[in-house]
Parts: sequence; structure tokens; C-alpha cells
Amino acid sequence: MLKFASLLLALSFCQGRQHHNINNDDEVVPVFQASKYSSLWPLPQKVQISEISFKLSGTSFKIVDAKESSAGSSCSILQSAYRRYYEYMFGSAKKQWGGKNRRADLTELHVWITSPDSECDAYPGVTSDESCESFYGGLETFSQLVYEDEYGAKNINSSKISDFPRFAHRGVLLDSSRHFLPIKVILANLETMAMNKINVFHWHIVDDQSFPYLSRTFPQLSQQGAYHPYTHVYTPADVKMVIEFARLRGIRVIPEFDTPGHTQSWGKGQTDLLTPCFSGSKPSGTFGPVNPILNTTYDFMTQFFKEVSTVFPDTYVHLGGDEVDFTCWKSNPDIQKFMEQQQFGEDYSKLESFYIQRLLDIVSTTQKGYLIWQEVFDNGVKLKADTLIHVWKGNQQQYQNEMANVTASGYQTLLSTPWYLNRISYGQDWQGFYKADPQDFKGTDEQKKLVIGGEACLWGEYVDATNLTPRLWPRASAVAERLWSASNVTDIDDAFNRLSLHRCRMVERGIPAEPLFSSYCPHEYKGV
Amino acid sequence: MLKFASLLLALSFCQGRQHHNINNDDEVVPVFQASKYSSLWPLPQKVQISEISFKLSGTSFKIVDAKESSAGSSCSILQSAYRRYYEYMFGSAKKQWGGKNRRADLTELHVWITSPDSECDAYPGVTSDESCESFYGGLETFSQLVYEDEYGAKNINSSKISDFPRFAHRGVLLDSSRHFLPIKVILANLETMAMNKINVFHWHIVDDQSFPYLSRTFPQLSQQGAYHPYTHVYTPADVKMVIEFARLRGIRVIPEFDTPGHTQSWGKGQTDLLTPCFSGSKPSGTFGPVNPILNTTYDFMTQFFKEVSTVFPDTYVHLGGDEVDFTCWKSNPDIQKFMEQQQFGEDYSKLESFYIQRLLDIVSTTQKGYLIWQEVFDNGVKLKADTLIHVWKGNQQQYQNEMANVTASGYQTLLSTPWYLNRISYGQDWQGFYKADPQDFKGTDEQKKLVIGGEACLWGEYVDATNLTPRLWPRASAVAERLWSASNVTDIDDAFNRLSLHRCRMVERGIPAEPLFSSYCPHEYKGV
Repeated sequence: MLKFASLLLALSFCQGRQHHNINNDDEVVPVFQASKYSSLWPLPQKVQISEISFKLSGTSFKIVDAKESSAGSSCSILQSAYRRYYEYMFGSAKKQWGGKNRRADLTELHVWITSPDSECDAYPGVTSDESCESFYGGLETFSQLVYEDEYGAKNINSSKISDFPRFAHRGVLLDSSRHFLPIKVILANLETMAMNKINVFHWHIVDDQSFPYLSRTFPQLSQQGAYHPYTHVYTPADVKMVIEFARLRGIRVIPEFDTPGHTQSWGKGQTDLLTPCFSGSKPSGTFGPVNPILNTTYDFMTQFFKEVSTVFPDTYVHLGGDEVDFTCWKSNPDIQKFMEQQQFGEDYSKLESFYIQRLLDIVSTTQKGYLIWQEVFDNGVKLKADTLIHVWKGNQQQYQNEMANVTASGYQTLLSTPWYLNRISYGQDWQGFYKADPQDFKGTDEQKKLVIGGEACLWGEYVDATNLTPRLWPRASAVAERLWSASNVTDIDDAFNRLSLHRCRMVERGIPAEPLFSSYCPHEYKGV
Repeated sequence: MLKFASLLLALSFCQGRQHHNINNDDEVVPVFQASKYSSLWPLPQKVQISEISFKLSGTSFKIVDAKESSAGSSCSILQSAYRRYYEYMFGSAKKQWGGKNRRADLTELHVWITSPDSECDAYPGVTSDESCESFYGGLETFSQLVYEDEYGAKNINSSKISDFPRFAHRGVLLDSSRHFLPIKVILANLETMAMNKINVFHWHIVDDQSFPYLSRTFPQLSQQGAYHPYTHVYTPADVKMVIEFARLRGIRVIPEFDTPGHTQSWGKGQTDLLTPCFSGSKPSGTFGPVNPILNTTYDFMTQFFKEVSTVFPDTYVHLGGDEVDFTCWKSNPDIQKFMEQQQFGEDYSKLESFYIQRLLDIVSTTQKGYLIWQEVFDNGVKLKADTLIHVWKGNQQQYQNEMANVTASGYQTLLSTPWYLNRISYGQDWQGFYKADPQDFKGTDEQKKLVIGGEACLWGEYVDATNLTPRLWPRASAVAERLWSASNVTDIDDAFNRLSLHRCRMVERGIPAEPLFSSYCPHEYKGV
């Protein structure tokens, strides 16, 4: 992501308003309220908000490129952000504000980018610098500092923000297989991810239930495997749009094509890809995981992941590898024979590893890194050093042990177990998400450094366009702060206060983020 | 509600299409599939769907008043229903259909109303006749029988429906105090109630958290007690609109003004209404339930409920009476003194009864009947014979005992305990709602007859405009079928199949009803 090294305030345009805490010489004494962070979410690393406030006017306010900035009007990512944040700050209020001559204290925000201009067209990556040293933090933080006074006028208090994320990988998983998610829903949630400084969209795009990804190489996969071949698929143009929309918001799109399990929908459009299950000595007509003993399987995977590697620009792809059911493999006489030949005995996890090993080799040739669910590590598959192990199983003790084991083996890891947001319960369950910490396990400092972040997962069995967005937000916001803010930001009362305001801000920006508890927003959601 | 005694099919306009099950003489043999109810929800009492299908065309289809009908073009409730159901059936498809000359099998639906015309302007009531003897059931049922064939053409199969509700009171409680619910949200949910043949909107309009009801007599109540005196109130015009919108859909609006507990917000705009709590010998500055020992309290209630009785036309009002906390009463020396005078000893439930008794007398003078939460019955308050006891507490055994006790005392009752839809859990919790039966307790037939129905309650702590609708539907649909259909309609698999289609129909009609499980709808929700 672009390095917003400095958001300069054009001080010559400003007149500081005097509020409380003024000494006898009429000299403004900024009082930094270290414990009052207004509605900031996630909390920046260092925040000092003074009591000196400036007025902003939508009719005169400009976001301009600082003279020293390496990026300017030709930088699409920056211009897109200017428009977005201008609308967040002034969008609804502008028309009511009347004439252009209204006096404003602060009329220009200077944005000074220090990274090379070329990044304007680049994709965000795991090594992108997201730090920010400035008066007001990045544009999202700046916009969060803007508030309405009792007259409806926009104000911002003079502030000093120093900011950077605690973890590089802060993700949200959406599942478009159990239910198809219209593009509109995906874009709205990318928009909301940006508001929460989430920088990875883990797109669990296909699974047993349906295959909505329209492959140019294997169009039969969605033609046969999607819920509907036209209304319930993501065309190449759709995928491109999602990726570009995400890029403009500093969000990486990591697709997951999970094999060898979770592939029932793949089998409909690709003959012989899945293992035929047997009932006694005869094929039962049903199919199991990907057939790992046929050369055609690997030919298919080679072509398929070659396409995936070009369609999705991110340097990582998620290869799944979870929950492989051995029942079907065990029933199949050809598989049994292969097991004997390979001297695997009765250990079908060796067969699973055999498949995954070859798949990883195939994907490696596409120059992509990969994420895999923890089972692949647990089964002892040989992995590239830069593989990311995605922990998702067990209770707290079990996942903490897993994090310890994975990092002791020198692998990088990310955590999802405590953040299965599809699991709902009555009450303020965001507090549980908020308390979980991915570095909370027994291990050395070196091991802790191998934790690159985590992901909130919203599996799709019970969500679709009707209820996904309010179920995800602000519950995923709790995860967003855990992954962005300092590890000692754990005050649940302070979090409740800020998050309540942050959720109303999301609502004002058009996102149906659900309430934390009895309360109200100045501007309630306008939809149904 | 109007009695749709017959929806006549103009058979002279029809040509039966021959499908399967034709005998050798080319004579159509209608095969009634007693176990196949397509997408009907709630299931009518008697359904026979033949395999003879008719085509409908949006360009030629007319809903007309039968010659014999007692209601016609001047009947607002009927004309409003015609338009609504025409749009449900043809709304989105009409434009694609081209010319007017497209051949249709069924061009007119004759609606024969047998009840007096005057009911067109009346409000629905607990004694309204909702039964329906016809080829196609009521308009909702007729519209549910319409389906698209593989060419997108609308069809309906010749059917014989005999229908009436099992219970007269089939309600949904919405709570506009914990969160303010914009009128738009309330109307959308009334619309959805009608699709589910829910006929009571129990409007829990005020509570501790806020008082959004704008009283003409006591405007200070909302001026001081609402979350916001202008943006978060229901004006008289709003309330009128809700009542009329409901009336046109056969839905009664029963407001709840819960006292003496749950009244914190009342105290802000009405001095001396609430009991001052004491800390030792001094007032603590906080307030408890309504002060039951002052004459001013009863003067206020007299005026207030006089207004309520004129604003809300339904013959019943819900008076609450639940969860009265005695702590504050106990702390107050004036209350203590009063307890002595009345010889109540230390039994504060006697004081509660004293208050409720007087309140009921006041409300009786307005010619309204009343519903009260079960505590009022439990505390032995003297009740009018037509009082409805609303059961909401305890586990299954406890609420079944309560239903037995209440009916043994000769009172009518309605059940909500198993239908607290605000309580969410992971998975298909609608099945639990579906299995509960309000007549499932130990009692005589006479007792069972005193059960007038039930209500699904969606308390407002965790819902507002952002998430209320998908959280309510189709979970409340499960309750709707339990209260409408015959008691032996309990096949959970059949229910799942019909409810899945019914939920997609709600989605097509613009309601974000959430999914039951992994699946898809032909037309997914268009919002976010």
C-alpha cells in the first residue's frame, strides 16, 4: 500500500479556535487526552488529540497533493481515495451548507506520499508499508477524527497520530459457495473492510455446494457446478472488478481453491476428477475427494492453477487442504491398490500428503506462495519456507498449542480459530473476539514474530445477501482492532464506547452494521 | 378481516393443459398429490393441487369482483389487496412479456366476498372471520400457487383449498424502545407478516430505554424520553399510517404501554411519576417503577390511556406488568409507610397488585380489553373475564404448567415463551420454534379452547433497522405456520422444503429474509 508518510496541515489557512483549558495569557494550551480516543477504530498506535478544534467546510475543503509528494493527480489509488473520503466527510451534508463563502478554519489537507510513484498502479502485498507519521494519520483516521458540533458543522481537533499495524495480515474470509454472494455485496464489504483497515479479502470462492468461479480454461466447472450457470457465477470481468475495487482500498484478494476435499461441485463439470466411491465391489454412483492416483488429476491442476495464478495478482493463493474424509478413498479398489504400491499401509493421511505434495509443487511453478489450512502441516507435508499455516481448529488450548508447534517449526502462521464469525450466540459476542490474541501462546520472541496476523471467517451456510453485512459488522471490527492496534489495547469499556461510534459511522456511510446493544445512531440505517 | 368466501375461477376462459398422468382416452385424470404442497406457507387446512395447469399472463390477467360479491370497487381493503397481489405475481415479469395478444389460459380471478360491505372500512379484530372456501384459497394462497415454468411463464395448477386459521391470535412483537425502528422498517415487516398470515402486530412501543411515542396529551414524554425528540419519535401521523397499513393487510395493531416497571424513560418527561429511590435516609437521585401511592399517578394514567384508547382502534391494549423490581420501592420511606397503612406487611407483590388493579379499572373505563404479562395473573390480581394472559416465562415444563393454570382459572391465554426470536443460536433454530405447540399442556378440551394463539417476540436490545428483518424472517414464519395450520402439520422435512421456497418468495418480494441453510434463490436479494 502507499506510504502516507505525512498528511500535512496547511497551517497558514488555519485559525485555531479556543476552547476550554486556556491559560491567562490567552495562549492555547493543548491538553492531550490520552484516554479519550473519540471514535477512532481501530485505535492508532499513538494518538494525541488536543482540544484545539478547526472547522471544515465541504464547499471549500480540498485534499491536495503536497509539493514534496511523489504521487499526484495521475495516481489512481490516491485520487480514488480523495473522492471516497471527501464523500464520507461531507457527502450528505454538503447541500445543506449553502454559499461558498462560509468561513472555514481548515481548507486544505496536504497529502505527502514518500513511496515511489509506480506503486500507484501496483497491488498491495504482504510487505506493503502501511505506516503513517503525520498530524492526522491516514485518510481513514483523518475522516474518523472529523465530527459534527451542535450546529451540524464539521470539526476536527488538532491531533498527532503515529500509526502502523501490529500484524501485516488482517483478513476477512467470505464464502461464496454455500451461498452465492452478488458482486454488490462483496464490494460493500470490501468498502467496510477498508473502514476497519482490514487488508486481506480471503475469497473462499468455491466448495462442495457450488462452483461460481467462471474458469476460462474449464468453463464446464461453473457451467455444471454453479447454482446457476449465468446468474450465480463470477465472470472474469466480475473477478477483475473485485480485485481492482480492493486494490484501490489497499486490500489484497487471496482466492482459495480448496482441494482435495470440499470439491463435490468440481466433479460436475470435470469428469474423473473426483474419486468414485464403491459400495462393496460396485461403484455407488457417488464421489469422494479429488482422485489422487490419476495423472489426469495433476494435468488438470497444472492448467487450472496456471489460470488462477494469472487471474489473481496477489503473490499468495490459499490451497485449502482441510477436512479430507477418507471413507470414499478406502472404498475404492484402485486406491487400495495404489496404497499398497506406495507402501502407505492403512494410513490415508499419507495419501493425502502425497496429493498435496504434488499440488504444492505444481503451484510453486506458478511463482506463487501459498497458504494452507493447518491439517497439511499436521500431516507432515513438506512445505516451502514461506508457506503460511492457517490455524482454525480446536479450543483455546488446542489452537495455542498449534500456534506454538507451527512457529517452533519455523513457519509463519495466521489465526482464525477464535474468529469464526458464522457461529452466532446471544449477546455481545464481539467481546470474545476482541479478547483473543494471536500471540498468546507459549513460545520465544522469535516464534511470536512468525505470527503474521489472522482472519475473521464468515462461513456461508447461514448467510447470503440478505444478512451477511450486518452479521459481519461490527463483529469483524473487533478482530480488526486486535490485529491492527497495540497488544496492550485491551480496555473493553473503552472499546465499547469507540466501537459504538464506529458502528454508527459505518451506518452513516451506508453499511448496515448491527448494533452492539440498546442505543441509537443520530442517523439510522436508511434501508430495511 | 374480510371473508373471502370464494375465489371463483372463470372457467369459461380456461383451457386445461394436459401434463403427465393422462389415461389412454386422452381424458385428463387429475392426480391430487396430498403430500406435495409446493411452496404453500403457512399450509392451508385442506389442499388439493391437481396436475392440470393454467397459464397466466400479466398483460391480460384481471382480479375482478364477482357479481355476487358484497364488496366491490369502493372497498379500499380489497382494491389495495388486488394491486398488491397483482404486483407480487406479475410485478417484475410484466415488462418482458411483450404484446397483449399472448394467449393465456386463465384471465380472470373472481373474488366473492360474503361479509357485509361495511367491513371494508372496519378494523380487523379477534373475532374476524378469516376462513376461506374456494378453488384457490385467499389471495395470498392464490399468489403462492403461481409458479414460473421453464420458459419463465406464470402458471397455476387447478386446486381446491379450504382454509381457516387454527388460532385467532397470531402475533409478532417488535420493540421500538431499545432501538428506534424507522417507519419504513415497521411497514416492511407488516408487509411480511401478511405474507405469513400473521394478524397481530404487538407494538412494544416504549420501555426503559426510550419513549418514542409522541403523546398529544403529554408531549414531554417523548420530548424528554425519546432518544431524539424529532428524529426518533412516532408522530400521530406515523402511528396512523402504521395502523392503516396494517388494516389493509388484515393485521391488528395492539400497542403495549408497560407499567409499573420498564418505565425509566417515562420519568424524564413526567415529574413525580416514578418512585424516588433512597440511599439510607436520602433520595439517591435515581428512580424506580411508577409510584403507586400518589393520586397524581392515577390521574396521569387516566388521561394517558384515554388518549391511547382513541389513537389505537383495536379493542385490546397490552398493559405489560412484567418484571417489577421491588428494590426501589423498599428503599422509599413513603412507600414503607403506605405498605403499613394498607397492611401489606413485607409483600411488595401486594403493592404491585394494588397498582395494577387500579390501572385495570382505569383502562376498563375506556371500553378496551387488555392483555397482560403472566406476572399479573401469578400475583392474583382480579381480572376481567375477557383478559388475555400472555405467557412468556420459564422453561418448557414451567410454561406448560402456567398455560394449564391460567386456563384452569378460566382465562384466555397466548404463548410466547418458546418464541423469543431475539435469542439467536447457531444453526436451524426455526425447527425448535416450529415444534413448540401452545396447546401442548395437561388440560381439558375446555382449557385448550382458551388458548387463542401466540406471538413471536423480537426484543430490541440487539436489533435495529440494520438487521431486524433478516433476523425475524423466516424464523417467525415457523411460528406463523404453527399458529395457522392444523396441529398435525409437523413434518419437519416437508416444512423445510416449503419454507425454503417461501423464504425465496419473500426475497423476490423485496424482503431480506435470511437463508435456512446452504442453497440459493433464483432471484437473490438485490440490497446489501
